[in-house]
Amino acid sequence: MKKSILTTLFLGLLATQTSFAQEPLMIAKQGSFAVGGTVKTSEGSYTPIPAEISDKTSASFWDAYGASVKAGGMSLHGDHASVFYQVPANAKSPPLVFLHGYGGSIRTWQTTPDGREGFDTLFLRKGYPIYLVDQPRSGSAGKSTEKAEITATPDEQFWYAQFRIGVYPNFNQGVQFPQDKASYEQFFRSMTPATGAFNVGVITDSMAKLFEKTGDGVFVTHSAGGVIGWTTAMASDKVKGIVAIEAGNFPFPESEVPQALTSKFGDVSPISVSFEQFKNSRKSQSSSTSATLSPMN
Amino acid sequence: MKKSILTTLFLGLLATQTSFAQEPLMIAKQGSFAVGGTVKTSEGSYTPIPAEISDKTSASFWDAYGASVKAGGMSLHGDHASVFYQVPANAKSPPLVFLHGYGGSIRTWQTTPDGREGFDTLFLRKGYPIYLVDQPRSGSAGKSTEKAEITATPDEQFWYAQFRIGVYPNFNQGVQFPQDKASYEQFFRSMTPATGAFNVGVITDSMAKLFEKTGDGVFVTHSAGGVIGWTTAMASDKVKGIVAIEAGNFPFPESEVPQALTSKFGDVSPISVSFEQFKNSRKSQSSSTSATLSPMN
Repeated sequence: MKKSILTTLFLGLLATQTSFAQEPLMIAKQGSFAVGGTVKTSEGSYTPIPAEISDKTSASFWDAYGASVKAGGMSLHGDHASVFYQVPANAKSPPLVFLHGYGGSIRTWQTTPDGREGFDTLFLRKGYPIYLVDQPRSGSAGKSTEKAEITATPDEQFWYAQFRIGVYPNFNQGVQFPQDKASYEQFFRSMTPATGAFNVGVITDSMAKLFEKTGDGVFVTHSAGGVIGWTTAMASDKVKGIVAIEAGNFPFPESEVPQALTSKFGDVSPISVSFEQFKNSRKSQSSSTSATLSPMN
Repeated sequence: MKKSILTTLFLGLLATQTSFAQEPLMIAKQGSFAVGGTVKTSEGSYTPIPAEISDKTSASFWDAYGASVKAGGMSLHGDHASVFYQVPANAKSPPLVFLHGYGGSIRTWQTTPDGREGFDTLFLRKGYPIYLVDQPRSGSAGKSTEKAEITATPDEQFWYAQFRIGVYPNFNQGVQFPQDKASYEQFFRSMTPATGAFNVGVITDSMAKLFEKTGDGVFVTHSAGGVIGWTTAMASDKVKGIVAIEAGNFPFPESEVPQALTSKFGDVSPISVSFEQFKNSRKSQSSSTSATLSPMN
């Protein structure tokens, strides 16, 4: 499959670079910002000193907070993505946007569990601007407009298998995951729970707006983030290439949708899109020299 | 009050630097890691293929996940801090550790709401290694060992007053907060909800372990993070100075605890510690030339 070959080449190229890249990074600009999102407003009218506490001279802080929430008329900015970017000196084109998968965050692209440089730094060394994303309702973009529960459920052995590390406590044959205890711990401490439901429309909207800021760029997606790569390419003409690593799903034109893949560990139903949408995503990519990076071509 | 004067000087020094600092940053090393935390384990024994799904050939992914959770015997690594660090070329001593306050994360120290460079980049330009913290149960360190609810409550006007920006929609006289709509939006989108209860012991433990990694350093804390500055200095001899910006509370030796401050917006009870603890925190700081930075001296 073309995707697998390209992914392997991509990772192989990185591996050859790490050993002799010890000179300092030259960073022209770095910082963070929020992009996308919406505003939710509560009923009522904002009351700086709610009646419930106005006569008090002593109170618990959270009672004062509660009185203010009860009076209402307040806002919540949520469902945005949070982006950390670094632009190297003498930057090359295109910029690279990195989106994590399930349980991920910006951390996915930083230091590896065994302490080697992450994709962020490797690509900065190659001269590309990098944009690391916490998708809406994840990491530092945790403000969701919808309620959610953090269940604190022990489930790491399940993900260990799901992420194809092995069947705990064993490792799959040939797996490159580091096999020491410290790396195992760092890996599971690099995961972080979502603070709201995974919403393709919300995330896609924030990513399309991010590409308006970056201009023509390449979208590097991981796992569950793979879906957002395809949907963003359909929504924005600025996505000039996609590198999908272990993408969780793929879109097909509605007339050519294959059967669902079935498994006791979860069926996967292909994403059906109109032929027009599918064609649009191809068009935006084929207008760029980066088009060969995209497994959609 | 000594603290206010030092804080003002500190901010004033930064302000004079920003306008002519346009050369690229030289970064010798950057990356992220988790530090501190604990492991929670569920009862039962881990079953790679739970009986509930073993005979199925088709299933929903989350049903398979649920069956695995029900079989139990799995782990959750949680309650760690997540740290992003950058070490400039020809780094000076001491390293600076930055801890956010309520609703904060690493984002607190990055780009300002109106797009200027954050404390992280300003201090890198001055040659200091910087360590930005997502405290346990915040930001990308969201894995908590305790359940929590994300309430998605509109409450920003309350925080607008609490953070002394003004009484919404007005601004306090002389406030330096930018008064345009885009900055307001960026500010409230830089906040992120905690994914578990604020636990002084858990956070202090992770910060003491972080200072074991950084070695002797200065702890820069904001707002609710202020408390953790004092408790970490009492727990670790590596905290050689504290810069507390708008610290939410202060410790006193048990024989000298002043009365609580009372207010309809929440009383503040001083933190009482043993004289030995209080003395220890002073000792660790006075052994360093950075001691003058600490409002505890």
